[in-house]
Amino acid sequence: MTHTAELIAVGTELLLGNICNTDAQMISQTLSGLGINVYYHTVVGDNPARVRAAVEVAKGRADIIITTGGLGPTCDDLTKQVLAASFGKRLVFDERSAERIRAYFAERLPHRQMTENNLQQAMLPEGCTVLDNDWGTAPGCAFEAEGVRVIMLPGPPRECRAMLQYRVVPYLREMADGVIASRTLKLFGIGESAMEAQLRDQMLAMTNPTLAPYAKEGECELRITAKAATEAEAQAMLDPVEAGLREQFGDLVYGVDVSSLEERVSQLLRAQGKTLATAESCTGGLAAKRMTDLAGASEIFRGGVVCYATDVKRDLLGVPEEVLERYGAVSAETARALAEGARRVLGSDFALSITGVAGPDPDDRGNPVGLVYLALADGQQVWVKEAHLGQSRERVRTSAVHTAFDLLRRRLTGLPVLG
Amino acid sequence: MTHTAELIAVGTELLLGNICNTDAQMISQTLSGLGINVYYHTVVGDNPARVRAAVEVAKGRADIIITTGGLGPTCDDLTKQVLAASFGKRLVFDERSAERIRAYFAERLPHRQMTENNLQQAMLPEGCTVLDNDWGTAPGCAFEAEGVRVIMLPGPPRECRAMLQYRVVPYLREMADGVIASRTLKLFGIGESAMEAQLRDQMLAMTNPTLAPYAKEGECELRITAKAATEAEAQAMLDPVEAGLREQFGDLVYGVDVSSLEERVSQLLRAQGKTLATAESCTGGLAAKRMTDLAGASEIFRGGVVCYATDVKRDLLGVPEEVLERYGAVSAETARALAEGARRVLGSDFALSITGVAGPDPDDRGNPVGLVYLALADGQQVWVKEAHLGQSRERVRTSAVHTAFDLLRRRLTGLPVLG
Repeated sequence: MTHTAELIAVGTELLLGNICNTDAQMISQTLSGLGINVYYHTVVGDNPARVRAAVEVAKGRADIIITTGGLGPTCDDLTKQVLAASFGKRLVFDERSAERIRAYFAERLPHRQMTENNLQQAMLPEGCTVLDNDWGTAPGCAFEAEGVRVIMLPGPPRECRAMLQYRVVPYLREMADGVIASRTLKLFGIGESAMEAQLRDQMLAMTNPTLAPYAKEGECELRITAKAATEAEAQAMLDPVEAGLREQFGDLVYGVDVSSLEERVSQLLRAQGKTLATAESCTGGLAAKRMTDLAGASEIFRGGVVCYATDVKRDLLGVPEEVLERYGAVSAETARALAEGARRVLGSDFALSITGVAGPDPDDRGNPVGLVYLALADGQQVWVKEAHLGQSRERVRTSAVHTAFDLLRRRLTGLPVLG
Repeated sequence: MTHTAELIAVGTELLLGNICNTDAQMISQTLSGLGINVYYHTVVGDNPARVRAAVEVAKGRADIIITTGGLGPTCDDLTKQVLAASFGKRLVFDERSAERIRAYFAERLPHRQMTENNLQQAMLPEGCTVLDNDWGTAPGCAFEAEGVRVIMLPGPPRECRAMLQYRVVPYLREMADGVIASRTLKLFGIGESAMEAQLRDQMLAMTNPTLAPYAKEGECELRITAKAATEAEAQAMLDPVEAGLREQFGDLVYGVDVSSLEERVSQLLRAQGKTLATAESCTGGLAAKRMTDLAGASEIFRGGVVCYATDVKRDLLGVPEEVLERYGAVSAETARALAEGARRVLGSDFALSITGVAGPDPDDRGNPVGLVYLALADGQQVWVKEAHLGQSRERVRTSAVHTAFDLLRRRLTGLPVLG
């Protein structure tokens, strides 16, 4: 049986445009992967009558309702009140959830006073499945009534994402018949439209497995999804499709089911027992931040220098004054000297450097916004790449970091570093 | 008269989670600024029956309906067809729009063949106001019928944003009466529920201005919104509320209508002609990244050292070996030496240092996850703070950076640095 879900986001801040409904995107992607249709998203404010109206409409057209937001003490637990009322359920005090909330405050926020309204969050619809929240104080919950499954999740995207992955997906998997398996190929170095143009005919011809392209932050993803009676059958259906795509896109594919280029690079460094250091000018620490987002980074990441000021490039990383004067801070020569300097002073096996113009204005030598030089040093050789990465400050910085990590990925997998 | 708008976004790509409904956020912000209430957003796929259902629901509860998407040739002009049918209007060929579409292709897309279905975009509801699209091919349109104003905009955010600003705002200004003004106080150092507990009675008693609390990433916001006949009157209504909140929350308020602690700190550094450097261990470059997210950072930010490995702390920032051995890398003494070292080697007026345990595991001396030492050096004095920042790696890192920036904010505004 095919299920139809409807998402209801509760929060006046969404209607005021203070925040964007990223929860809906995240949940939709996940439901799509599970083979559950989504026909509507609704956003409604912190107003009981209007939330109730949205719920009544949703009940008439979906058999799964997923709400986000409205669970915290600041909104009087609006969502739980309304959903319970709409389905004729009472809210009852859940001692286990109360205990978890007390423990959360005691362990994680010892400097904060827990207030009585925090315990209000332990009031849950009678007979519901409690979805424990290990990432915040408000528990989620799920119940089934009138032929509809209702799932309530906290609104903050960080909590919503974790609850979705660790609580909702297992819950929904149980109701699905058959198994849905998917793999995501990650690509770097090709644009979304170029990728889609190459795949269009293939995609239209496929029904099971299906193939869906996504683009984000300058990277591309291809998700293959297969539905079968067993996990093994579904996986076997994915194999030839993955093999075909790998042949088609070659070394643009940097990994499968890996979250990011930095995760892939970290895996490779760890497997080879090597370390990395960074020297960053225009990216201002973003590459180092990305490397250390991952737990266990200390085994592979030595550190970095954010050399925003020109004399820091000279004094801390040993870029010769004459190079800076003759070629400028944004140049292939400076990128090369930065990578060599970072490798030396930070004592790593590899070093990446990034120097460029993030904008909004050209630099004082007239270098245009988006011009970035990147270098990789490995003690034997230095590779330098010139890149033109667009106009928006954020895009330039993000693309520069991806491009740098991709140089190292290619070096670590024995590919030609500069493509 | 107060107007109520409802937004309907048309696009299956939204329901699949391929893209986020940023148009809704953008339009909501704009409508809020015009004093127009928004009670619902709806997202629906490229399906005539479901779009029609969403429109029928919206007609019953709003007097302005704004649609985004579904205007292009790939969806058979779905949105116009459905809206015209719902309001009993015919679509008629608009020769002026057709001429604009032909000219757009000839001038901007000379390499693309204009197809007949592009001219389909010139079919518009009879008697509508055409909203010329200078940023793409699909014109928008607006009409009034059955007491409802209908406005249709293209979906691509770049086109939608420009159409909103240059076509819709002038159109809506004519019908709006009164002005809505708001201010957002930003707080650091208080939890959402503690803040909400202090304000609950006040908030309930207020109708105009209103007060709304928000929390994100460990910071809190209080938004005050007033509605009046003129901007000056609305601003005058906000003044006493802001003054009262400032008195109530004292130096926890770090700014008004400022986007972040780093923006506030940047403003203060710029005004005082001072510079900053950073030394980061567990935050791995996040503080430097945040400082350089802002354009113009080079005037105030010298650079930073990401000293992830212990010997980098010693070799690059001069933390004495005996300090590292005796107290460890995560200690008040090391934080102090890091801040002093960063200030010295990076040549800045101020330096912030952060060293701690981001997790997921305790460090090799048994320091618990979440324990972080932060220091601020100004050449005269060093302030060191010990903080316990929770269990999640991401939360610890974000909170550590906020806490560090807050030390500097307090120093730059003459407050006791350690509170």
